[in-house]
Amino acid sequence: MPEQPVSAHARGSAHLELTSVSNPRIKQVVGLRRRRQRDQLGLILVEGYEELSLALDAGVVPVTLYYCPDLVRDPAVVDDLVGMVAATGAEIVRVGVRVFEKIAYRESPDGWLAVVPTVPTDLAALPMTTDPLALVCQSVEKPGNLGAMLRTADAVGVTAVVAAQPVTDWGNPNVVRASKGTVFSVPVAAAHSADVLAWTRAHSMRVVAATPNTDTVFTDVDFTGPTVVAVGSEKFGLTDDWLAAADVRVRIPMVGRANSLNVATSAAIILYEALRQR
Amino acid sequence: MPEQPVSAHARGSAHLELTSVSNPRIKQVVGLRRRRQRDQLGLILVEGYEELSLALDAGVVPVTLYYCPDLVRDPAVVDDLVGMVAATGAEIVRVGVRVFEKIAYRESPDGWLAVVPTVPTDLAALPMTTDPLALVCQSVEKPGNLGAMLRTADAVGVTAVVAAQPVTDWGNPNVVRASKGTVFSVPVAAAHSADVLAWTRAHSMRVVAATPNTDTVFTDVDFTGPTVVAVGSEKFGLTDDWLAAADVRVRIPMVGRANSLNVATSAAIILYEALRQR
Repeated sequence: MPEQPVSAHARGSAHLELTSVSNPRIKQVVGLRRRRQRDQLGLILVEGYEELSLALDAGVVPVTLYYCPDLVRDPAVVDDLVGMVAATGAEIVRVGVRVFEKIAYRESPDGWLAVVPTVPTDLAALPMTTDPLALVCQSVEKPGNLGAMLRTADAVGVTAVVAAQPVTDWGNPNVVRASKGTVFSVPVAAAHSADVLAWTRAHSMRVVAATPNTDTVFTDVDFTGPTVVAVGSEKFGLTDDWLAAADVRVRIPMVGRANSLNVATSAAIILYEALRQR
Repeated sequence: MPEQPVSAHARGSAHLELTSVSNPRIKQVVGLRRRRQRDQLGLILVEGYEELSLALDAGVVPVTLYYCPDLVRDPAVVDDLVGMVAATGAEIVRVGVRVFEKIAYRESPDGWLAVVPTVPTDLAALPMTTDPLALVCQSVEKPGNLGAMLRTADAVGVTAVVAAQPVTDWGNPNVVRASKGTVFSVPVAAAHSADVLAWTRAHSMRVVAATPNTDTVFTDVDFTGPTVVAVGSEKFGLTDDWLAAADVRVRIPMVGRANSLNVATSAAIILYEALRQR
């Protein structure tokens, strides 16, 4: 395909227009789908009107907004959201359909994609309440599960979600998408299991570990007081260090033929029981 | 690519070997990814050792088993599972890696794929207990959500899962996969909403409808006695006919910034509250 001329002219201080699919910016944006690139640049992607709105609402200051008016279903929202992002000082880049379809990672892009700073994941910097309820997910692998747990954590109003021995980073575009943007509103962290366990002790949190190998049913356990609910990886569940360190191990009753619930479903069931008791 | 010779020789009455990727069988199997083909032939696909085992355990009699020994991680299980399937009278076809990768729809195929009769979805044929707990999902679209709900339904031991005004068929390969095979062990049905509502009345089931637009919290409702939990589509929730017909509408408390829980998560939270009470 022949190189196309780049048509980028200012429409205000930081407003650009981009029509060529061979513009080097596109490669840069697409590169952020790779973890190494995210880690090196400290930048991640957030796509979608709903997700971007939630990020802004949570105080995120985008670096660059890419938007494609031709893909936005409701034209009435364009000026509002562009104005809101511009007010943060972010660079605004208007793009054509072909360019947007290059940078979008969704199947049906809605015309909104922003490059934003990576979410902070420092364990020590997590906000703490007097009566915390936190979720630890140890080595959970699937972005869809991590995102689903964030949505639940947001709904329950948990203090924090901590990835112990993380496999997938919080900035993975599929985590951001599956979280519906709640990765920006729920405090998250990522750390080694030993550090996460030390953190739970430093804040006198009771560790409730989910495992099929116990007789204690989750509804028989006290979730009032500072609590951490811990769930393990899709394939192996919690590792021995977590099971050994737990103050109590709980199981979710299962009467069926299959031997496991989805990890995000398990977390939701236990967190809502905690909420019911608190 | 040149046509390759088909090497199919009997190894027992119904044992074939298939090495050519241009064999017409392959096209037939791949065609079952399309709903029209599934509906026309009354056949669906089940892929994966775990899923196939659960299907057999639930009494499914496969039409054809395709297996690829070179992709099976644990060779010790090959003879057992092939023997078990052969004992049902199914045709057994051994295939090479290239052929299997053609027919597999998973990213990392494990060497097991069977063509099986479509699951029965007749509302009138659903088994009924004296104290049923059923799940209705109305126009739920995403196969991953339908599959996740089946896993939960299996774990809770629900009487049946009914798709009202279905968008996605129960035989969708991604439903089968996300269900981990529980689509074969949990009684399912698909029908128009009016028929499903008539079915709930015929069995004196109380309809508990999940919606954000009510003040009643789900934990304040009585789930003992014959009950149907109804959840709606990902985008729009339950339609007005369901909300109007419901005996009680319940909401799941949400304190966060996002405005909704995933539909499969919502169903799990409510079903486990029902189980806790029953």
